[in-house]
Amino acid sequence: MTNKQQILAKRPVGMPDAETWTLTTTEVPELKEGEVIIKNHFVSLDPAMRGWMNDAKSYIPPVQIGEVMRAGTIGTVVKANKHPKYKKGDVLTGWGGVQQYTITDGTNYYPVDTNLAPMPTYIGTLGMPGMTAYFGILEVGKIKEGDVVLVSGAAGAVGSVVGQIAKIKGCTVVGIAGGPDKCRYVVEELGFDACIDYKNENVPAGIKQHCPKGIDVYFDNVGGEILDAALGRLRMHARVVICGAISQYNNKENVKGPSNYLSLLVNRATMQGMVVMDYAKDYQTAAQEMGQWMMEGKLKSKEDIYEGIENFHETFQRLFTGEKKGKLVLKVIEE
Amino acid sequence: MTNKQQILAKRPVGMPDAETWTLTTTEVPELKEGEVIIKNHFVSLDPAMRGWMNDAKSYIPPVQIGEVMRAGTIGTVVKANKHPKYKKGDVLTGWGGVQQYTITDGTNYYPVDTNLAPMPTYIGTLGMPGMTAYFGILEVGKIKEGDVVLVSGAAGAVGSVVGQIAKIKGCTVVGIAGGPDKCRYVVEELGFDACIDYKNENVPAGIKQHCPKGIDVYFDNVGGEILDAALGRLRMHARVVICGAISQYNNKENVKGPSNYLSLLVNRATMQGMVVMDYAKDYQTAAQEMGQWMMEGKLKSKEDIYEGIENFHETFQRLFTGEKKGKLVLKVIEE
Repeated sequence: MTNKQQILAKRPVGMPDAETWTLTTTEVPELKEGEVIIKNHFVSLDPAMRGWMNDAKSYIPPVQIGEVMRAGTIGTVVKANKHPKYKKGDVLTGWGGVQQYTITDGTNYYPVDTNLAPMPTYIGTLGMPGMTAYFGILEVGKIKEGDVVLVSGAAGAVGSVVGQIAKIKGCTVVGIAGGPDKCRYVVEELGFDACIDYKNENVPAGIKQHCPKGIDVYFDNVGGEILDAALGRLRMHARVVICGAISQYNNKENVKGPSNYLSLLVNRATMQGMVVMDYAKDYQTAAQEMGQWMMEGKLKSKEDIYEGIENFHETFQRLFTGEKKGKLVLKVIEE
Repeated sequence: MTNKQQILAKRPVGMPDAETWTLTTTEVPELKEGEVIIKNHFVSLDPAMRGWMNDAKSYIPPVQIGEVMRAGTIGTVVKANKHPKYKKGDVLTGWGGVQQYTITDGTNYYPVDTNLAPMPTYIGTLGMPGMTAYFGILEVGKIKEGDVVLVSGAAGAVGSVVGQIAKIKGCTVVGIAGGPDKCRYVVEELGFDACIDYKNENVPAGIKQHCPKGIDVYFDNVGGEILDAALGRLRMHARVVICGAISQYNNKENVKGPSNYLSLLVNRATMQGMVVMDYAKDYQTAAQEMGQWMMEGKLKSKEDIYEGIENFHETFQRLFTGEKKGKLVLKVIEE
C-alpha cells in the first residue's frame, strides 16, 4: 500500500510556492499493536497552517522541514492492530496531515457519525473552524441579544459560522467579504443583515453605514486595514476577538499593527486572542448544539471541495487569494 | 481681583509650542448665588492633556479654542455666595483649569483634608494619577500574588504607583524608565525589583533578562516600540492594560500600532483600555486604602513642583521630554 505525502521542503518567505512542499510516495509500514491505519479521504485547508510553517514560538510547535505538512483530516480506519477503541470501518477526525494514509494510536482522534452529516462537514462547521467560531463568538465575544456584530472573512469557514450563530442569538450582523458574489451569499443564503465588499467598497464608510451606532463585537479573521477600520467604530465596552490575521500571514515585512488600538482606551474596550484547542473539553457539547441548529436549518454549512493531493499547493493558495466559497477541503484519495 | 489664565489659542500639530496657548489676564466676575471662587494653588500637568487638545472624538470633549486649558487643580475657597456645601477656607480638588481662580457651583469638586497629606499629593498619588494606577492595576490588570508585572513610565505619576501597589500585592515588578537616575529611584526608593533604562538599554533584551518566564501583566503608559517589546514576552493569559501612549501623543503621522499584537492570540491574552473617570464612585475607598499605605510607608509619593503660570508651556513639555521625576505640578499663584 503506497502513501502519497506532502512534505515541508523549505520555509517560505511570503506566499508559499511550488518549492515549499515536495510530493513523495512511500510504503505504508506494518502496524504495531494498538495502532490503526486511517485512509484520509479529506484534508482541511486552513489559514492557520501558514503560521505553523514559520520557525517561531506559537501556540503549537512549527512543522519541521522534512515532516508531513500538518493538517486536520477525516478518514476511515482501514486496518487495526488490537486497538482498544477503534476497528476497521470507523470514521475518525484528527490531525492526519496532508497525506493519504496515517498510522496512529488514536491520540487526538475523535469518532464521528457520517449518518448525521457528510464527512467534509466534520472538518468544517462541525470541526475546527466551526468550533473556533462557536467558542470565539460566545466565550470570547460574549455576544448578547441586540449586539451589533461585525465579522471579517464573512464567507469563510469560521466567519460564516460566527455570523450565523450571532444571528441565532439575536444580534445585528454585518459581514466583510471580498467580491459581490460572496457578499450576496453571506446576506441571501446565510442571513447576515449586510455585507461590505472590501474589494469594491470603502470599508470604513461601509461600517459607518451599516453600524451607525458602532460595533459591540468585532470578530477578526484578517487583521491589517480592516482591523483598523473596525477599531475606529467601537462602542463603549466593545469586545474585539482576535482569531486570525490572514492579510498578514504572507508578509515579508513586519505585521501591520493596528494604529487605532487607542480606541480600546477611549471606549474601555477589550481585544482578546483565542486558540480553539483550549476549548477541547467542550467540543462535544458545541457539536451537538451546532448539529441541532443545522437540522433546524438555522446553520448552513458550505464546503468548497477540490481533488488530488498533487494539487495541494494550488488549492492552499486559494485561502489567500480568496478564490473559494466556504470551507476549503481537499480530497486526497479516491474512495 | 485679577485672574491669569492659559487659553488654548490653536490646535497643535505635533508638540505644542509657544503659540499653542495665550496667557491672558481678566477680572474675576461677581459670584452668583450657590457659587464659590477657588484660588488654584496647584495645577496638575498630565500627558492626557495633550489628547484633550485634539479635535477628535475621545472619552471627553476636546478643549475648544479660546477656552481655558483643562487641568486638574487643588485650591482654597476664597469666597462663597450661599453655597450649600462649601465655605471660605475649604480646600477642594477638581477641574479648575490652568488659571489662578475658578468660579464653580462645586460640581465635580471634592473636599480634601490637608492635615493628612499636602496639597500636591491630592492631585498626584491621591488624585487622578493615583486613582488611574489603583484601578488600572487592580481592576483591569487583575494582579495576583506571584504575577510578573512590567510597568512603563515607571518613574512617572501613574507608573510609580502602579509598581508600588503591585509590590504591596506580592508581585515581581519590573519598571521601564528613561535614564539611570530614574531607574535608580524606581529600584532604590520605590522598591521595584528591577528597572530597564530605555534610553541606554535594549528594551527587549532587558525584559528577557528581568522577566525570564515572561510577563503576566503589562501596564502601558507609553505605546510605540516598548508596547511591542512587552507584547513579545507575554505569558499565557496575560493582561495588557492600555492606560496611555505618551510616545505617540505628539505624532504628526499615524499612531504606531503594535506589530506584535498577534501575541494576544498565541498567548490567549487580553489588551484592555481604561479611563479612570469610570471608577469615580470608588475613589473614596481607594484614597483611604492608599492613604493608609502612605502612612505605613509602603507607598511613596513624589511631586516635581515648578512655579509660575507664565511657565506653563515650558513645564508642560517636561512630560514629553522626561525632564521631571514623579508627578509634574505647577504652582500658579503665590500663597
